[in-house]
Amino acid sequence: MNREALLGALMARLGPQGVLLDAADKAPYERSARHGRGRACAVLRPANGDDLAWVIEQLAAADEAFVVQGAATGLVGAATPTDAGRQWVLSTQRLRDGLAIDPVNRSAVVAAGYRLSDLNRAAADHGLCFPIDLGADPSLGGMVATNTGGSRLIRYGSVRENLLAVEAVLLHPPGARVGSTRALRKNNTGLDWCQLLAGTLGAFAVLSRVTVKLHPVQRQAATALVAVESPAAAMGLLGSLERALGEFVSAFEGLSGHALSAAVDHLPDMPAPFASTPAYAVLLEVSSAIAPGAGLDLEALLMAWLERELDSGTLVDAIVDKPERLWRIRHAVSESVQALGRLVAFDLAVSRSRFAAFRAHALALVGAHVPAARVCDFGHLGDGGVHLNIVVPRETDDAAIQTLRTAVYDAVVREFDGSFSAEHGIGPSNQAYHRRFTDLPTRALAGALHRHLDPAARLGNVRLD
Amino acid sequence: MNREALLGALMARLGPQGVLLDAADKAPYERSARHGRGRACAVLRPANGDDLAWVIEQLAAADEAFVVQGAATGLVGAATPTDAGRQWVLSTQRLRDGLAIDPVNRSAVVAAGYRLSDLNRAAADHGLCFPIDLGADPSLGGMVATNTGGSRLIRYGSVRENLLAVEAVLLHPPGARVGSTRALRKNNTGLDWCQLLAGTLGAFAVLSRVTVKLHPVQRQAATALVAVESPAAAMGLLGSLERALGEFVSAFEGLSGHALSAAVDHLPDMPAPFASTPAYAVLLEVSSAIAPGAGLDLEALLMAWLERELDSGTLVDAIVDKPERLWRIRHAVSESVQALGRLVAFDLAVSRSRFAAFRAHALALVGAHVPAARVCDFGHLGDGGVHLNIVVPRETDDAAIQTLRTAVYDAVVREFDGSFSAEHGIGPSNQAYHRRFTDLPTRALAGALHRHLDPAARLGNVRLD
Repeated sequence: MNREALLGALMARLGPQGVLLDAADKAPYERSARHGRGRACAVLRPANGDDLAWVIEQLAAADEAFVVQGAATGLVGAATPTDAGRQWVLSTQRLRDGLAIDPVNRSAVVAAGYRLSDLNRAAADHGLCFPIDLGADPSLGGMVATNTGGSRLIRYGSVRENLLAVEAVLLHPPGARVGSTRALRKNNTGLDWCQLLAGTLGAFAVLSRVTVKLHPVQRQAATALVAVESPAAAMGLLGSLERALGEFVSAFEGLSGHALSAAVDHLPDMPAPFASTPAYAVLLEVSSAIAPGAGLDLEALLMAWLERELDSGTLVDAIVDKPERLWRIRHAVSESVQALGRLVAFDLAVSRSRFAAFRAHALALVGAHVPAARVCDFGHLGDGGVHLNIVVPRETDDAAIQTLRTAVYDAVVREFDGSFSAEHGIGPSNQAYHRRFTDLPTRALAGALHRHLDPAARLGNVRLD
Repeated sequence: MNREALLGALMARLGPQGVLLDAADKAPYERSARHGRGRACAVLRPANGDDLAWVIEQLAAADEAFVVQGAATGLVGAATPTDAGRQWVLSTQRLRDGLAIDPVNRSAVVAAGYRLSDLNRAAADHGLCFPIDLGADPSLGGMVATNTGGSRLIRYGSVRENLLAVEAVLLHPPGARVGSTRALRKNNTGLDWCQLLAGTLGAFAVLSRVTVKLHPVQRQAATALVAVESPAAAMGLLGSLERALGEFVSAFEGLSGHALSAAVDHLPDMPAPFASTPAYAVLLEVSSAIAPGAGLDLEALLMAWLERELDSGTLVDAIVDKPERLWRIRHAVSESVQALGRLVAFDLAVSRSRFAAFRAHALALVGAHVPAARVCDFGHLGDGGVHLNIVVPRETDDAAIQTLRTAVYDAVVREFDGSFSAEHGIGPSNQAYHRRFTDLPTRALAGALHRHLDPAARLGNVRLD
C-alpha cells in the first residue's frame, strides 16, 4: 500500500480526530519532556482497542515504522519520534475505552490512555487509590512500560508490584492481541506478558489495557522535615524510623542543603524552615488507612519518635507541619533547580547501605570534572534512589559534561553495584549506556525477543539488544 | 564424552557427596511430593556457584538432559525426573555458599539451596523476616522458580514482589552466568532476568543466587476464627475488615465447614471451636511491626471491629485466641483432608468479586461428576485463592476424576476469568492444561525463549510452548 492509500484508509476509519497531519497539530507530539524533539509522518490516535489493533495491522502491511506515545511525560525520549521524519506517532491519548473499578477485588481495568489522575479520581469514589506517586501525570500505558517508581515506593513498590495483568497488541503477527484483563493476585501458569512488558519501554508490544491493584486511601498522615548532620546520619535515621513505626513509613525523601535552599528560594511565600541551611534534610511521612480517632494517632507516634531522636542527638532539628506544606517544598525541588541554570540530571539508585559512600564519591567526581557545578541532589532514600541533579554554568563544555556523566555511571554501576537509570527507563538519551553496561547474554536474549516480536523492527526507538 | 568419562570427571571435581549413584542414595531425589516418581541417572550436588556452572557445562558437552531440584516440595512434578531414567537430577541442596543479610538495606543475598527457614532464622537476628508464609519449607531457588504465594500474600505479595535480583546459569552458552546480586529497589535498565525466571518453573535457566527484600518482623498480632453464613458473607467481611483495619490485615483464610471439621477432628487435643459446624469460617489475622505498648493495640482494635460485626449480624460467631492455636487448625487442614480418603486437589484463583459465584459453580460441578465426593475447600480468600480439595471414595473411576478436573478448569479459566494453577505453577502434572488454556502467540513466544536459551532441550521437564 502506498502512503497516500494508507492515509486514506486511516482517515476513513479513525476520522479527523484520529489522524493529525498539520504541522501545528503534530507539534505537541514531536516534543520530548527532556530530550529534544523529532518529526512525525502523522499522529494516529485510535480511540479503542479494536482500532488500535487495526492501525498496527495497517502500518505493518504498509511497512511503516512508528513510536508509541502516552502522555509524553517520559524523560529518556522513548516516546518521541526521531528527527528523520520517517516514524509515525501512535498516540494512546484517546485510548480511553473503559476504566472499571472493582471495589471488592480492590483492582481496576484501565485502557492505556487514561492518566494516573483519572484513575485516582475514579478510585477515590470507592475509598481506594493507585499509590504510585509521581511529579508528572503519565498515562497508565506509559507507567507500565516505564515501571514508574516515585516517592512512595518504599511503602507500595513500583508499578510492577501493583500490576495484575496487561493486554497488548503485537507487531507480529500484526495486530494479534495477547494478555488479559484477569484481575488475579495469584496466577502462575507460565509466561506472563506483565513480566515482559513492564519496564521494557514499549520495545516489544503496544499496551492496550492494564489491570492494577488498588489500595485503601490513607486517612491520616503525619509529616516532618528534619535536619541531620550528614547523608549517613539520614540513613541511620531511616533504620530507626522503620523499627519504631514499621509499616507506616510511606516516604523518606532526602534533600541536600542546596536542593532545599533552591526549593525554598523558589517559593516566595515559604519561609526558610531552619535557622541555617542544614548539611542534609529529610522529608519523612508516616500514613495509615485507619481513620483518625479509631485507635491510632500517627501524629502522636511520630512526635514521640522525633523527641527521642532529638534527645539522642541524631537529629539537628525537626519541623512538623501540614503534609501539603512540607510536600510543596519537596515538589518544588526539580523545577527550582532547573531555574538556577543549566541542569544536568542523573537518575541513579544504589543499595541503601551504600548510599552515603556513593554520594560522597559522586560529589568528588563532579568537583573533579566540572568544578563550577552546584550539586542539588535529592532522592528517594527509602529505596536508594538518588537524583543527582547538578546545575552547571551555561557555557560549560558539552564534552566535559559527557565525561562526567560517563564517570558517574561507571562508578554507580561498576563500583557501587547500582543502577544508572533507576526510574526513568531506557530510551534514545541513554541507549549507549545501556549497551555499555549490559552483558552479552542479556543483549542476546533481548535480540531474540526483538526478532520474534518485531522482526521488521517497526516499533519504537528503543533497542534492548 | 561418554557417560563413564563424564562420571569420572564429575566425581573428581564434586567428590562423593556431590555425585550420588546408589539406588538408595538417589531414591529421595526421585520422589515428588504429590506427583509420582521417576528415575535419575545420577544425582549431582554442586556446593557452590562455580561448580554449578561447571556441571552444566559438562552435561551440555556430553549431551545429557537434567532436571533441577531444590527441596522437592513442589506439587506439580517439575523437579522430579521422568521415569525413562535418562535425566540427571541437579540438586541445589548443597548450594549454600553464602547467605548475607544487609540490615540497612533490608535485603538478603542467598544461594539457591538455602531453605526459607534458614533465611528466616538469619533475618530474625536483625529483627527482619522474609514474609512468604508457606506450609512447606522450600529452597529459595524453588520459591523463585515457582513464584510461591502462601497465606500472607494479601499483605506482602508473592515472591516476585519481593525479589530484587537473580543470578542464574544458562544452558546456552553452556555455563554462562547472568543476572546479578544488586540489591536495588529501583532499577529500570531494560530486560531483567528476575522477570523471566520468577514463576517460569526453571524452564529457561538454573538459578544460583537470589536477592530478596526483607521486612520488619511482626511484633504483635491478633487473630480470630469467625463463623459466617456463606462464602459471600465472608467476602463482604473482608471489605469491612480492610476498611476498618487497612494495612494491618495479614491473612484472611477461608475454611468450608467440611475443611474446618476435618482439621479439628484431626487434632485430638483441639476442642470444636463452634457449637455447631458453620457453613463457612474465616481465620483472620491483623499484625504490625509496632511493638506492643507503643501506641497501637491491635487486639483492642480487632475486638472492637468484631463487636460491631456481631452487632450488625454479619458474623454468626467469633473466637479470639492465641494466633498459634488458631493457625494450628488452619495448618492441619491439608493433612487432615488427605487422611480422609483419596484426595483430589485443585489450586485455583479468581478475582475476589467472583469468588462466591465460582465456588457455588464448582461445587455443583463436583456434585454432578462425582456425587460421592466430599468437598473440603479452603483458600486464601484475601487474594482470591481457592484450594478446592475434595475427598473421593478410593474406588472412584480415574476417568470421572479427569472429566471433573477438566470441567472445573474450563469453568475457572473460561467462565470466571480465573487461574487453574494459582500458586503451584506448571509441571508435568498440569502441562496438558497449560496447553489447553494458553493462546498461540504466548506459546510461540515461549518457544522462541526455549530455543534461544536451551536449543538442545536439555533442561527440565516443563515446556511452556
